[in-house]
Amino acid sequence: MPDHQAIAARLAERLGSNGFLREAGDIAPFRRDSVYCAEGDIIGVARPANLSEVSDVLALCHDAGIVVIPRGGGTGFAGGALPRRQDSAVILSTDRLRAIRSVDIVGDVMVVEAGVTLQAVRDEAARHGRLVGIDHGGAGSSAIGGNIATNAGGNNVVRYGMSRDQLLGIEAVLSDGRLVSSASTLRKSNAGYDLRHLLAGSEGTLAIITAVALKMRPQPVKRVTGLFALASPDAVLTLFAMAKDVLGEAIAAFEVMSQAALAQHYAHAGASAVQPFANDAKWSVLIEADAASVFFDLDAALAALTERALEMEIVRNGILAASLAQRDALWKLREGIAVAMGAWRGPMVRTDTSVPVARVPEFIAGIEAGAQRIVPGAPTFFFGHVGDGNIHFNLAAPPSMPDETFRARMSEVYRMTEDMALSLNGSVSAEHGIGQSKREALMRMKTPVELDLMAGIKKVFDPGGLLNPGKILF
Amino acid sequence: MPDHQAIAARLAERLGSNGFLREAGDIAPFRRDSVYCAEGDIIGVARPANLSEVSDVLALCHDAGIVVIPRGGGTGFAGGALPRRQDSAVILSTDRLRAIRSVDIVGDVMVVEAGVTLQAVRDEAARHGRLVGIDHGGAGSSAIGGNIATNAGGNNVVRYGMSRDQLLGIEAVLSDGRLVSSASTLRKSNAGYDLRHLLAGSEGTLAIITAVALKMRPQPVKRVTGLFALASPDAVLTLFAMAKDVLGEAIAAFEVMSQAALAQHYAHAGASAVQPFANDAKWSVLIEADAASVFFDLDAALAALTERALEMEIVRNGILAASLAQRDALWKLREGIAVAMGAWRGPMVRTDTSVPVARVPEFIAGIEAGAQRIVPGAPTFFFGHVGDGNIHFNLAAPPSMPDETFRARMSEVYRMTEDMALSLNGSVSAEHGIGQSKREALMRMKTPVELDLMAGIKKVFDPGGLLNPGKILF
Repeated sequence: MPDHQAIAARLAERLGSNGFLREAGDIAPFRRDSVYCAEGDIIGVARPANLSEVSDVLALCHDAGIVVIPRGGGTGFAGGALPRRQDSAVILSTDRLRAIRSVDIVGDVMVVEAGVTLQAVRDEAARHGRLVGIDHGGAGSSAIGGNIATNAGGNNVVRYGMSRDQLLGIEAVLSDGRLVSSASTLRKSNAGYDLRHLLAGSEGTLAIITAVALKMRPQPVKRVTGLFALASPDAVLTLFAMAKDVLGEAIAAFEVMSQAALAQHYAHAGASAVQPFANDAKWSVLIEADAASVFFDLDAALAALTERALEMEIVRNGILAASLAQRDALWKLREGIAVAMGAWRGPMVRTDTSVPVARVPEFIAGIEAGAQRIVPGAPTFFFGHVGDGNIHFNLAAPPSMPDETFRARMSEVYRMTEDMALSLNGSVSAEHGIGQSKREALMRMKTPVELDLMAGIKKVFDPGGLLNPGKILF
Repeated sequence: MPDHQAIAARLAERLGSNGFLREAGDIAPFRRDSVYCAEGDIIGVARPANLSEVSDVLALCHDAGIVVIPRGGGTGFAGGALPRRQDSAVILSTDRLRAIRSVDIVGDVMVVEAGVTLQAVRDEAARHGRLVGIDHGGAGSSAIGGNIATNAGGNNVVRYGMSRDQLLGIEAVLSDGRLVSSASTLRKSNAGYDLRHLLAGSEGTLAIITAVALKMRPQPVKRVTGLFALASPDAVLTLFAMAKDVLGEAIAAFEVMSQAALAQHYAHAGASAVQPFANDAKWSVLIEADAASVFFDLDAALAALTERALEMEIVRNGILAASLAQRDALWKLREGIAVAMGAWRGPMVRTDTSVPVARVPEFIAGIEAGAQRIVPGAPTFFFGHVGDGNIHFNLAAPPSMPDETFRARMSEVYRMTEDMALSLNGSVSAEHGIGQSKREALMRMKTPVELDLMAGIKKVFDPGGLLNPGKILF
């Protein structure tokens, strides 16, 4: 049996009192993420302030046989940063790894430590007229290391790809404390197996990311935003194809919202909600496009798209933002849905699956039918990223149904959603990762060979199984 | 000892006479790549026509303990598809895996089998108004499976990234014949370790890629091209920064050519060479930009860039292509250098390293000095992809030096080039891969931990070490 008192004493000695938290009150914030609460025991929270301290924390825990769970902003949705019921773990928080190590505007690369928030990364890039192509609702509190470790998605994936696609190099430490590599700033290197992409999305189960080198891009000099009302998911896809024809790669977001989801935002926001136009359409789409060159006339492009879509009766109505305030108002609709869903009182099914883009209408119809079969009369909410095939589907209890009755059916709804995605060659996790919550679903999704290979890889990196055990698979 | 007669008979029986080549004349083309000749023995060339045949070839060889070497177009530069001196191997050629399985223009994904040439992939995308973002001089003969397996680079990396960045899903078979996975067409999936990126760039040492799902993008509707004369590598970087300001992400190629390299093209092409303008500048840059929207005024953008660069005396002279024929003439300069280098009579050092973009001037100066120190008076040629920090450096013997004298110094020049790249935090292989030719260099570049992890990963995928042994590392 590992001696928890002894390891705590050693860590406190190495990190100082500010570097190792043991009091219940200090530890409390580390006992939850955006959705789940920790079921296991937290021995203490190590807060190393540099690479050498990270390495020592890992080596000390490794030698004592203690589980280590890395944690960034704690904004995950899958229990990935929490100890399981059977664990007694040291949490390794990256919140003191806060240095922006370098910004190179010739090569357009930024090297930042894992604990820097995504917003701070974006702000630093903006100060240099650059952009880092990751953005989502958790920018203010999520750590860049966590974004890479979970390969976070978000609103701009259709333009820039996922978090891994912004990654040039990675600095990481193995569970035994050994440094894997420094964060390379190279744009091009074909030198052996790509460990960088293996660590990205591995959710802290293979190594602890301490710093990353990220691509920067030119900051957009122009941005246009529009909202459109449509009758069906098929019309949504037709508009998407049309938008690609007119705007090319400038499409930065293409977000869909169901009528019920929007209505929930209006109900939750109350008097402060702005309804851009009388919108009784079943589906709304928010399009944003941006460009880093003043020679790209995005206003004319979006106007042309709108005209063509109205003329061909793809959209019923549309509004283009004429000011930054109007743009913000349009985005409030999309963000307001997330807020309203988060504030929902009572149990709610919240999903994050993906399917090939062309199969989104089939997916939505199948889910709607499946949900009504399991919980007749339950309100369904759809919203998300059409261009990535990633439609979030939420389900609440019908007004008349007791919470407990609904709760008893939730796992069936989750299972139905995952199976529907899989039957369309989709994924059980589009952008939130696996963590503790989707391990069973992952086993249904992957081939036995893939699972074998993943298990083998885990053993290579962490033979003792001490690093974030029970997350993803093992 | 494996029984070569027996395995050959079994493979011939399984694949038919057209599916398994044994005659010396039939095998001869498989005994070389773009640079190297095979030193080892080829038992025969298996040409499976579908996934099931690939699986059976691998299982048969696995059970017999026979080495298998995958081969696409055979256009590599690193000996990656050739048996080593100590090997007796079956070559698994993908040249009959030629199906374009699906083209989805809603999700913009194409699924193609490994043996389809890059050019055929590009042509198919173009038929649907789409682009696949991989292009290089070997497009006509290289296979898409090989492009992914070696993570090929090329001229458009500055715009679209490397081959791996075009990859959505991968179908691959392990050395024992088991299927890893089908080629997923999902845009977004966060479900466990990313085996796709591990296979991309693994040079056929972990599994054999049989099909890939590739991103498509809108086909550019407009393309502009210009050639500029500059005095120094520093000026080249200044022009690059300026181009990013004006053109944003539309820059599709930013290629540099040294005066000596261009002169060699003119000398080699003779009367057929077109010199766009009297150009006595030390450095020339070819810029191409493209856009998939008609609302991006690229002509105006490139004109503005040219005017600004002339005004600020960053460039000495410039010419913008006014027609497709003029564009082709400008590209002939860049491509003509590769042709002239390929046609060089006598020994030549040919390198492929990369450094952080900002360090390109330092790299060029250091290489020039290092080369002159080792082989005084030797002509140096520089050309390549500035935006990726990937400058190809070639060196020939001085006119008066016997080939044998020069040959004796070539390994020192290679070593100097690699060490110079490494001293600037660069890579010993930018885009050509490791194969057999850069294994020693890779060991100097990577940390012992990285090498350990790579060795461990190889063991997980191919415990018997039968798949393309001695390539990359093992």
